[in-house]
Amino acid sequence: MCTGTPSVSRRAALLGGAAVTATAALGLADPAPAAASRIAKHGLEDLTYTLTTTFPAYSPGEEAVRRTVVNIDPDGYYLQEWRIIEHIGTHVDAPGHFVTGGRLAPELRPAELIVPAVVVDISGRAKRDPDATVTVGDLQAFERRYGRIPRDAAVLMHSGWGAKVGDPDAYRGTDAAGTLHFPGFSADAVDYLVRRRAIRAIGVDTLSTDPGISANFEVHHVLGGADRYGLENLANLHRIPPTGARITVGLIPYQEGSGGQARVFASW
Amino acid sequence: MCTGTPSVSRRAALLGGAAVTATAALGLADPAPAAASRIAKHGLEDLTYTLTTTFPAYSPGEEAVRRTVVNIDPDGYYLQEWRIIEHIGTHVDAPGHFVTGGRLAPELRPAELIVPAVVVDISGRAKRDPDATVTVGDLQAFERRYGRIPRDAAVLMHSGWGAKVGDPDAYRGTDAAGTLHFPGFSADAVDYLVRRRAIRAIGVDTLSTDPGISANFEVHHVLGGADRYGLENLANLHRIPPTGARITVGLIPYQEGSGGQARVFASW
Repeated sequence: MCTGTPSVSRRAALLGGAAVTATAALGLADPAPAAASRIAKHGLEDLTYTLTTTFPAYSPGEEAVRRTVVNIDPDGYYLQEWRIIEHIGTHVDAPGHFVTGGRLAPELRPAELIVPAVVVDISGRAKRDPDATVTVGDLQAFERRYGRIPRDAAVLMHSGWGAKVGDPDAYRGTDAAGTLHFPGFSADAVDYLVRRRAIRAIGVDTLSTDPGISANFEVHHVLGGADRYGLENLANLHRIPPTGARITVGLIPYQEGSGGQARVFASW
Repeated sequence: MCTGTPSVSRRAALLGGAAVTATAALGLADPAPAAASRIAKHGLEDLTYTLTTTFPAYSPGEEAVRRTVVNIDPDGYYLQEWRIIEHIGTHVDAPGHFVTGGRLAPELRPAELIVPAVVVDISGRAKRDPDATVTVGDLQAFERRYGRIPRDAAVLMHSGWGAKVGDPDAYRGTDAAGTLHFPGFSADAVDYLVRRRAIRAIGVDTLSTDPGISANFEVHHVLGGADRYGLENLANLHRIPPTGARITVGLIPYQEGSGGQARVFASW
C-alpha cells in the first residue's frame, strides 16, 4: 500500500484484523496469506518492555518509582507520577551520555530515529559464555549470509538475554565478587560498523551496549564519540527478521536528556 | 519502496539526505522532486514537544522536575532523573484515565498506535473564540472537501493554539475568574466519530481533548467509555496534510499507566 491515500485502513479492515490494519498503515504491501515460514513476510513487533518499578536497573537502587496522584474514586480521574532516571527500561543513550559536548536527546533528528535494522544473533555463544560480545567476525559472517549491512542501519544484538529480564540479579549476571556478566558489543565491532558501514545506532537485549564485565565503557565512548546512539533493554528481538525490518525509535525528547525512555517498533 | 528489502537506506543515500532516508525507511514511494506545493508530497514530521520543566501543565504546580544525577566530570557519564506525571508534555490519555476498568497504557496495542491521521483545522474560528470546539458540522465540512474519515483514524484538531505554548498562562487561557479557555472537541463530534466513523483516537494541539471551559470532561468520558485514546499537546499540526498521513504514537508503556509521554511522528 504505497498510495498515500487515507483509504488504507478501510481496505485493511475488509481484509480483517488489527494486525493487518497496522501493516497497511505502515505503508507495506499486502500481507501474505498465513504461511509456514518462521518469520512472517510482513509484520509489526513491539521491541519495548513495559516500564515497571521492578525492571532491572544497571545499578540496584536506580529502579523507577511510581505513586498514584489521583484516582477515579473520589477524584474523577486517575493518574500516576513517576520518578525515573533516563536510562531505565527500554531506552536510548544519546551521544552526550558519555561524551562531553555530545548531542542530547532532543537533538537526535526524526530521520535518525526511523532506520533500517539488522539483527545479529549471538545467542548460541551467549548461552555458554555470558561475557560473549558481537565481534567483527560475527559481522563478517552475518554479511556473508545476509548481505551488506545498510548505511544508516541500527545493528541489534540478539543474545537471548531477555529470557532473564524477570530476575534482576540474573539479568545483571552479578557474580560473587559483584562483577556484572552479560553480553554486549566489542569496541572493535562498533568501530568497524561506524567507520566501514556508516551505521546510525546499535542496540542490545541487555542492560548495556558494553558487556557487563566492561570497566571502561569503551563501546559507549566509541559510539558516542562517533555521534551515534545506543538502544538498551530491547525486547522481542527473536521475533524480527535478520534483515529487512525498519525500526521507529519513539525517544522522549527530554530537555538536555542524556537519552531517555523510548517506545521502539519494528516493521517489515 | 514497498519491497521490504534492507537496501532501502543505501538507495536512499544515493538519492541524498537524511530526510530522504527517513522517507524511504518508512516504506513510502520515492520522494517527489522539489515542488511548489504547500505540503510536500511525502514527508516526515515530529508532532512532539521537547519535554521541559517549563512545559505548561493543566494544573500549575504539576510541571515536570529534573535533576542531574551524575555528570561526565567527575563521574564519567551524565544522566538526569525526572519526576513527571503521566499527563505532561505530548502524551496519551488511555481509556482508564477517566473510566473505571478502562484499558491502561501497556494494553494499547501497537496496531492501535500506528494509524491514519486526518487534521481538522479550526484555527480561523479559534483565533476569534478561544472556546471554539470541533463540531459535527466541522467534520461534515471536512468530509465534503477531503473525503470520508477512514476507519481507525486519529482525528487531530488543529486550532493554532500551539503558538501560545511558550507562555503557560496564555496556553491555559486562564481568565480573571480562573476559568481556562482553549479549544477542544465537542462531545457530539467525538460521539459521531466513534459511532459513525469507528475512529481509533482523537488528538489536540491544546492541553485537553475537552475545551478549557469544560467542567465535566464530557469528551474524556465519551472517548474513554468507547475504549479509544486521546493525544494532547501535539506540535506542528500545521505542517502535515489534512489527509494521507499516518502517525506512529510512541507511547511509553508505563505499568498501570493512565496514559503517558509519547513521541509522535507523522509520515506521508
